[in-house]
Amino acid sequence: MVGGLLVALIALLVAAKAGGALAERFDQPAVLGELLAGVAVGALPLLGFDGLGYVSHDPVIDALADLGVILLLFEVGLSTRLADLMKVGLSALLVATIGVVVPMALGWLVGLWLLPGRHPYVPIFLGATLCATSVGITARVLADLGRVRTSEGQIILGAAVIDDVMGLLVLAVMAGLVGGGTGSTSAVLAIVTAKAVGFLVGALLLGRAIAPRLFRVASRLRGRGVVFTLALVVCFGLSWLANAAGLAPIVGAFAAGLVLEGVGFDSLLPDGDKLEHLLMPLSTILVPIFFVRMGLRVDLPALAGGSVALALALTLVAILGKQACALAVVTRGADRLTIGLGMIPRGEVGLIFAGMGLELTLGGKPVLGAGEFAAVVAMVMLTTVLTPPLLKWRLGRVAPAAGVADAA
Amino acid sequence: MVGGLLVALIALLVAAKAGGALAERFDQPAVLGELLAGVAVGALPLLGFDGLGYVSHDPVIDALADLGVILLLFEVGLSTRLADLMKVGLSALLVATIGVVVPMALGWLVGLWLLPGRHPYVPIFLGATLCATSVGITARVLADLGRVRTSEGQIILGAAVIDDVMGLLVLAVMAGLVGGGTGSTSAVLAIVTAKAVGFLVGALLLGRAIAPRLFRVASRLRGRGVVFTLALVVCFGLSWLANAAGLAPIVGAFAAGLVLEGVGFDSLLPDGDKLEHLLMPLSTILVPIFFVRMGLRVDLPALAGGSVALALALTLVAILGKQACALAVVTRGADRLTIGLGMIPRGEVGLIFAGMGLELTLGGKPVLGAGEFAAVVAMVMLTTVLTPPLLKWRLGRVAPAAGVADAA
Repeated sequence: MVGGLLVALIALLVAAKAGGALAERFDQPAVLGELLAGVAVGALPLLGFDGLGYVSHDPVIDALADLGVILLLFEVGLSTRLADLMKVGLSALLVATIGVVVPMALGWLVGLWLLPGRHPYVPIFLGATLCATSVGITARVLADLGRVRTSEGQIILGAAVIDDVMGLLVLAVMAGLVGGGTGSTSAVLAIVTAKAVGFLVGALLLGRAIAPRLFRVASRLRGRGVVFTLALVVCFGLSWLANAAGLAPIVGAFAAGLVLEGVGFDSLLPDGDKLEHLLMPLSTILVPIFFVRMGLRVDLPALAGGSVALALALTLVAILGKQACALAVVTRGADRLTIGLGMIPRGEVGLIFAGMGLELTLGGKPVLGAGEFAAVVAMVMLTTVLTPPLLKWRLGRVAPAAGVADAA
Repeated sequence: MVGGLLVALIALLVAAKAGGALAERFDQPAVLGELLAGVAVGALPLLGFDGLGYVSHDPVIDALADLGVILLLFEVGLSTRLADLMKVGLSALLVATIGVVVPMALGWLVGLWLLPGRHPYVPIFLGATLCATSVGITARVLADLGRVRTSEGQIILGAAVIDDVMGLLVLAVMAGLVGGGTGSTSAVLAIVTAKAVGFLVGALLLGRAIAPRLFRVASRLRGRGVVFTLALVVCFGLSWLANAAGLAPIVGAFAAGLVLEGVGFDSLLPDGDKLEHLLMPLSTILVPIFFVRMGLRVDLPALAGGSVALALALTLVAILGKQACALAVVTRGADRLTIGLGMIPRGEVGLIFAGMGLELTLGGKPVLGAGEFAAVVAMVMLTTVLTPPLLKWRLGRVAPAAGVADAA
């Protein structure tokens, strides 16, 4: 039991650091190397080596990866000022809205064109797989390049949070449409919205009011690492609450970072330590596990069985659709292309939709066939792998304008 | 899935830090508070609250706890100099040997007295449950009090490693005796010994020869945390190797610490960071999870069903038997009582024996009945809980003599 875990950890950590170092040698973000290292490890069975097959669906590795992306967004939240985020609020709202509507519409058109003669809900469903941005990749690239606190970074992060709420709404509508619930859709929508908005507002208002007092009390307790542990407990607690409210746990982790950004840790931690510095060893180990596992899950044979035309068309409209939202940026001096590129990656939400499509039936046939599911998976993978180099290229050309570059 | 994990982590971390802070307020080691906090959480179902029942057998929490004790022994190994350990080698060997033989003999006598009329192997088996020291508790107390590098600390650690090898030998003999394999026992013994000794000598000699070069190469790679990650990979790798050689993974982790103690990390890590400092956040979170989970596993109803006389007699000879080994200390100036107390805790190996006893049969009856198993479990728990206060009391009275106190 512990033996298998140790081998899995060794394989993932070596793959992550080797891939990351290789990517950086070619001036690419480390996260791209980690993703491709995961793809390479996942492809080992195709070369006849099957000893690591269990790693891609090991529950412990899954849990460590989940904690990794939670820690990543917690760190990103810690280096974000709520005031800065508010300043770009309107841009973020517009970017999120257009970034959900346009890709959905384009995906619907792709469905009408490439899947003719199917039930009218099928193209709508295909469009829904394109709506939600997965912020993990972009957050990682921004953090690695020290651009979280630029106005572009803030708009992307704000839009990603709003985007997650909208993804929920689309999910509720789709489940209502296809699942057969009819009259109650608007009630479901109201409940979903109330839960998500209630979580965000409650966490931020209550958190920022209570957290400083909580940490002052904790700092008086004896024992090693009490303040640091409490910070993680707040992060895990808000992640859990977000999850319970139907949102992604990482939205809660980001909110926890925003809440704790207001706590003056410098006087609470011993030896003048910084919370960011204490989190670093944890995230150095866990964050790459998330991205290598993401690569591991690329099922090359399944991709090969998909429709190439559908996969390419979906990827194209996934990318173009999010560029449309960049036009909605109203913040002066923010680079629109950076924001459009940062919104490209699709992730879990798209895969959840696609998975639902495999299971639900319309007129006796599944909404999405196996080949169509594979095309959605290919779209998710391509947008994930293309974003780091595109974003790095664009960020290299624009000076960090209008906002504040990270101290890093 | 991720929701349950987050709740489990929050519960364990809060219990650990609250228990630790409370214990320290009463001038007891934090680890005692963590153990008792675990017992308290484990007892919640008895009070009608069953919401956390899954935590005690959650595979992810188990894995995190296993990693926690591996990291603890890695840290202890890092603060141990191989030369210091060699200096007390003879004492450690004598302490380990007598500490295995005397408790086994006393346990055998207890068996003859309290379990009369049973198969002659039964008392021998009961004695075997008393032989192996579990070094986790003592290592934690030594680390918390900054006494790892005293000669007492070194003797205990050295003896614990040898003790683990001897526990393996006893296990092989018992399996041979009871399991029915006869002629091959000496061959099995030879193989077991060769694997264990081969691992230890190989890891230390090869490791200390190769590690500095390996780390110098790694430090030239680009990417975040490469050297730190490699240190963990070495730790996990030797833990895995030890496990594969039949030893406890923590023996491998301790060996990894000894190996890396010889690598000059100060020039390899960025910003003059220290490996110990980078490990601290990881161990602050994971090590308490191990000890709280240890407390969680105390099954109070099962203990209540055991034989109180047998449990008390076993605990008494478990404690007295290890005091005998202190007489064998030949290192000048080392405090014998500290060493004897430090060797008291029994752990996994005792439970493994007891578990074997439940399953194996002699003359149609199980070697150990459920009540006898519960008595062994009670012995393990009592020795675990009694050691931290006893050791803290004794270390408060003796000056750190003859060796070097930790810089902490």
